[in-house]
Amino acid sequence: MAQKVLIVYAHQSPCSFSAGAKDAAVEVLKAKGCEVTVSDLYDMKFKATATAEDIIGEVKNAEHFRYAQETKLAWEEGRLSSDITEEQRKVTEADLIIFQFPMYWFSVPAIMKGWIDRVLTPGFAYSQEKRYSQGMFKDKKAMLSFTTGSHEPMFSANGIHGDINVSLWPLQNGILHYCGFQVLAPQIFWAPSSQTPEARKSMLDDWCTRLDKLMGEEPLSFPPLDYFDEKHFQLKPDVAEKFVSQEFGPALGVHLGKPLPHNSQVKAGV
Amino acid sequence: MAQKVLIVYAHQSPCSFSAGAKDAAVEVLKAKGCEVTVSDLYDMKFKATATAEDIIGEVKNAEHFRYAQETKLAWEEGRLSSDITEEQRKVTEADLIIFQFPMYWFSVPAIMKGWIDRVLTPGFAYSQEKRYSQGMFKDKKAMLSFTTGSHEPMFSANGIHGDINVSLWPLQNGILHYCGFQVLAPQIFWAPSSQTPEARKSMLDDWCTRLDKLMGEEPLSFPPLDYFDEKHFQLKPDVAEKFVSQEFGPALGVHLGKPLPHNSQVKAGV
Repeated sequence: MAQKVLIVYAHQSPCSFSAGAKDAAVEVLKAKGCEVTVSDLYDMKFKATATAEDIIGEVKNAEHFRYAQETKLAWEEGRLSSDITEEQRKVTEADLIIFQFPMYWFSVPAIMKGWIDRVLTPGFAYSQEKRYSQGMFKDKKAMLSFTTGSHEPMFSANGIHGDINVSLWPLQNGILHYCGFQVLAPQIFWAPSSQTPEARKSMLDDWCTRLDKLMGEEPLSFPPLDYFDEKHFQLKPDVAEKFVSQEFGPALGVHLGKPLPHNSQVKAGV
Repeated sequence: MAQKVLIVYAHQSPCSFSAGAKDAAVEVLKAKGCEVTVSDLYDMKFKATATAEDIIGEVKNAEHFRYAQETKLAWEEGRLSSDITEEQRKVTEADLIIFQFPMYWFSVPAIMKGWIDRVLTPGFAYSQEKRYSQGMFKDKKAMLSFTTGSHEPMFSANGIHGDINVSLWPLQNGILHYCGFQVLAPQIFWAPSSQTPEARKSMLDDWCTRLDKLMGEEPLSFPPLDYFDEKHFQLKPDVAEKFVSQEFGPALGVHLGKPLPHNSQVKAGV
């Protein structure tokens, strides 16, 4: 059966390097027999802000509007706005989601944050029980593919912006892994606008080579949900005990006061 | 002279705990003689997405639109859209900016990310030379004040979400400190919706107590810009040498492979 890929794409210009990366992914994946869908957020004029208009009909508590509670209920009752429902349908069908964007302020651009805030509603994307390694989307893969303005050494553990692994943790653990996705290593295009046209082409060629085998890649490692107790979600004492003699904790964020595992957010098998 | 405070506020409901925290700040700071301005982003229907409409008149390269370059030029020529210009005026006048929001997906809601993406344009908020400790806004203070859905232990170094300090680094280093702001410790309201009314009131009382002395607080520590060389922005060898025998590196992100300094993103003097 054909693998289905959703590319959530955020760049204003079809001439951008980001567009080139998106187009390359569409081309290579289609050539491999995948069904590829692109959500071109700027082109769609995707609504970024989480408001009561995201719910069709009456909200439960207009006086004290609470977005998470209201959208959970609206999802259950099929009353989310059509743009959200349409994106949720794409997510449900997808085996892999690629988020393609230029890094804005150490994160995704607002329009993509809006997609995350509005599409990944409680009930649909997670519940108290279905999170992390037991998450809703544990049979799906997701990855970040992004350009930076800065060169790679600036995002190192002795560079001015600090270790890129730290900045990726909230995105990859807090959003993708939170929903259960198997997180593939990010594709980072370092400062393409500072490169020669040949170097840019070479970056895209490398991406195409990777895309060819992408679906078979091992995902990044995150601690399984059962490492944590079910009441306070703390590392279980017997699990913590196992890490006492180890160099690193179970994950970058779950570091137990130890040094961070090297490159755990950019490379599989770490 | 009266201190000027700008509160950038993002919640949909005036009955929310976030609104209460914002209202408390307005009240306490006004009572202390501060001039307080609130940018109520949902009420303003603040545009979150970075598009060519943010520039008045012709863009330089419509074919290959590049947001950073176009907005830098538009800022220089006074051709940014009026909503951006108005927010930039508030930033210029402010001595302190408080970002008040509910945490969405380990970060700010999209509407607030849109304020960051659109208002903090190159030229106005930073340049190659004016960043970090030499940043444009080094005589100003800024801070995050936010609510979470999860309880505090879940955001610890042995909790399921990982150390909150890690998730704060990209926001506080990559946005606030990047622009030069002296970053005050964040005000974190842990899971107010799971608390009793009394506990919620107590959280707001603590905030009011803190607000009374807020302007005199010592900011969080970040490494000074001159720790890094001017070419590749790597820690200078003589500076790195000083940290060899130390327990921690110069900052959470600039960790040099050492354990992370405890609570450096939530407490001053660390």
